[in-house]
Amino acid sequence: MSMATSIQTLLLHHPTNLFNHNNNSPNTIRITTTTTTTPSFKPIFIKCAATTQIQTPPPSTSQDRVFNFAAGPATLPENVLLRAQSELYNWRGSGMSVMEMSHRGKEFLSIIQKAESDLRTLLNIPPEYSVLFLQGGATTQFAAIPLNICTADDTVDYIVTGSWGDKAFKEAQKFCKPKVIWSGKSEKYTKIPSFHELEQTPDAKYLHICANETIHGVEFKDYPTPKNGSGILVADMSSNFCSKPVEVSRFGVIYAGAQKNVGPSGVTIVIIRKDLIGNAQGMTPVMLDYKIHDENNSLYNTPPCYGIYMCGLVFEDLLEQGGLKEVEKKNKRKGEILYNAIDESNGFYRCPVEKSVRSLMNVPFTLEKSELEAEFIKEAAKEKMVQLKGHRSVGGMRASIYNAMPLAGVEKLVAFMKDFQAKHA
Amino acid sequence: MSMATSIQTLLLHHPTNLFNHNNNSPNTIRITTTTTTTPSFKPIFIKCAATTQIQTPPPSTSQDRVFNFAAGPATLPENVLLRAQSELYNWRGSGMSVMEMSHRGKEFLSIIQKAESDLRTLLNIPPEYSVLFLQGGATTQFAAIPLNICTADDTVDYIVTGSWGDKAFKEAQKFCKPKVIWSGKSEKYTKIPSFHELEQTPDAKYLHICANETIHGVEFKDYPTPKNGSGILVADMSSNFCSKPVEVSRFGVIYAGAQKNVGPSGVTIVIIRKDLIGNAQGMTPVMLDYKIHDENNSLYNTPPCYGIYMCGLVFEDLLEQGGLKEVEKKNKRKGEILYNAIDESNGFYRCPVEKSVRSLMNVPFTLEKSELEAEFIKEAAKEKMVQLKGHRSVGGMRASIYNAMPLAGVEKLVAFMKDFQAKHA
Repeated sequence: MSMATSIQTLLLHHPTNLFNHNNNSPNTIRITTTTTTTPSFKPIFIKCAATTQIQTPPPSTSQDRVFNFAAGPATLPENVLLRAQSELYNWRGSGMSVMEMSHRGKEFLSIIQKAESDLRTLLNIPPEYSVLFLQGGATTQFAAIPLNICTADDTVDYIVTGSWGDKAFKEAQKFCKPKVIWSGKSEKYTKIPSFHELEQTPDAKYLHICANETIHGVEFKDYPTPKNGSGILVADMSSNFCSKPVEVSRFGVIYAGAQKNVGPSGVTIVIIRKDLIGNAQGMTPVMLDYKIHDENNSLYNTPPCYGIYMCGLVFEDLLEQGGLKEVEKKNKRKGEILYNAIDESNGFYRCPVEKSVRSLMNVPFTLEKSELEAEFIKEAAKEKMVQLKGHRSVGGMRASIYNAMPLAGVEKLVAFMKDFQAKHA
Repeated sequence: MSMATSIQTLLLHHPTNLFNHNNNSPNTIRITTTTTTTPSFKPIFIKCAATTQIQTPPPSTSQDRVFNFAAGPATLPENVLLRAQSELYNWRGSGMSVMEMSHRGKEFLSIIQKAESDLRTLLNIPPEYSVLFLQGGATTQFAAIPLNICTADDTVDYIVTGSWGDKAFKEAQKFCKPKVIWSGKSEKYTKIPSFHELEQTPDAKYLHICANETIHGVEFKDYPTPKNGSGILVADMSSNFCSKPVEVSRFGVIYAGAQKNVGPSGVTIVIIRKDLIGNAQGMTPVMLDYKIHDENNSLYNTPPCYGIYMCGLVFEDLLEQGGLKEVEKKNKRKGEILYNAIDESNGFYRCPVEKSVRSLMNVPFTLEKSELEAEFIKEAAKEKMVQLKGHRSVGGMRASIYNAMPLAGVEKLVAFMKDFQAKHA
């Protein structure tokens, strides 16, 4: 290992440690490392060519980071980003970036196989389920689900608890006979139905839910059991995927866009019971046919390699945190302090969602004095808390607090909310 | 700008310059910079916490890079990778990675808009064409083209010059009535037909070609004119996109996976004449409907943001090189020396493709003594030239020499080929 390499490694992983000094415009830096082999210090002098300030520096210390409450793409774990940065140019001695690797080469195969294996460990996925890494987002799955799971004449049931469930239902109309058996629309999508009140269609081929509605902040805390013979429960878990343990065997299909909790946009993960694969309708585009991807281990055509690599780094990080039970604890704590701040504001802040089904991932709220909302968002941004504006379809604010949002980010937001209220009460 | 920032910038952009010294295991480094404001040197001492060697260093100098002849994902420009690395953790002071940005935020909008604008400049795309950034690879377009451009009853023509054209034809069979009007299969896909001999179907809705066959190394040097009334020429340009100027107005649709010449995998670019948008068949999945993506400027759902950002960096680089005419000159020079090495080997190396239509991107070749091919690939890899094995369907060798393959890489390969021949002649 060269010194250049070790310092770059150190610098990329610990930029603040390495440069933790008080003088903001030094001319000379001596970097001292201690090794076990050579006890004495030997200074090396390196004269930099630059005699004027570099004009476009990328700020790169933790202090420069914002707290990003975007609903997705969303904040990623800082250590994952630093790891990705450190090996972007040359992945682990391969002489190339992950972005340059043949998807059929041994290096990338090791990446995708480890990503799948770690995900299987995280979610305790039974062997009778396939894991597919696909493209096109949940929106592509809105078509792929009916195209693969039923015929054009089949009836299927949809519980619609928000905009995404509604979109899934509408897309299914092209490929089968979907029926909305419950909709929260008249109550502005603030509820989840009681399961025993659901009137499921007796011969429905599957029952579809959106496990967490990103826009409305409504989350299933338990799951309904399909009453039809085949018993296939299908869930869009895009915005709460890997935020807590899930009993996979209760589902026929789980699908999720990666860009909330587990990676960048451009990767869609499908977990599907193997016996549901292989019956796609005749006019299914080959890229929407689960059988093709399953037979080819997600390598029928070129997959979104870099995104899959990033997901793999996130999975490793989640395992290092102790797995999804530990992750869930952290998410509960974050949700608790944010919802408490809203509920204890004497109505200054309001969350419209029924308490028992409030999302731990997406927290929508409004101000009693709605004319202050623009100022709230603006002032928060000044304090480096960004993307707090609610979805354009519902207004107000929304704080998305996915796995990678640190507790410190939520604490800072809550402190800001209290200050803002004190100023404007 | 902090010192930390400027040194990280310097280090990421010029890793070899900064650490250009002879001592491989120093304990201390003094980095000296000269500024215009403070003439004296003030040493700053930073003690690193690490007391043992870091175990997993990412090698990060140019010397560690291989020449990667993979067919895609493929080698990317070194300066683009270094730029991406330098701003991965914090994009231009935004406090976040491009991977974390909301696709509806002003930062990402500036990225996708500049990417489109630069691509329009590079290819001189007329205003009556839309540019779409999609997902799913060319394989998804094999379905989207017929679903958007014709009805189920329409006849369409396919010229099949290799495996990819054949796949496009087969997928179209689900959605319309495609006809192969010429196939090079019986001659092992080594030719392009004479255009005047083509028997086009009079009422064919479009004529489809694959402009460059990645596996077989056959490239259209000019383009046929559709004889049907509507005159729609459709081209899969995945593996020669942006390798040379193209007269876009001759085409109805150009589509390309990014992972050969312009970026990582996971991004598909579609350039389509606007009057062809808006007539999708009824059962077209929403994600395959060009109208939806056109109306929403490729932001109907979450696009593959990081891939689009990388494409944008590549487009900037291509413009800085002087545009596609200059790029084409470099590609011609690289192709010339490699094909010459094959043709001047007295049959030791052989390229089966007819000379006038040899691809400047993918150069397939075999050895007269085929039993030496495995050794050729192995020995080349020892000299840091990797991914030279031919596609599993055709065997032999294949050197993909896309835009980002430097002349030095081709020169090194040619020198190796001559040495190898001298050893084994």
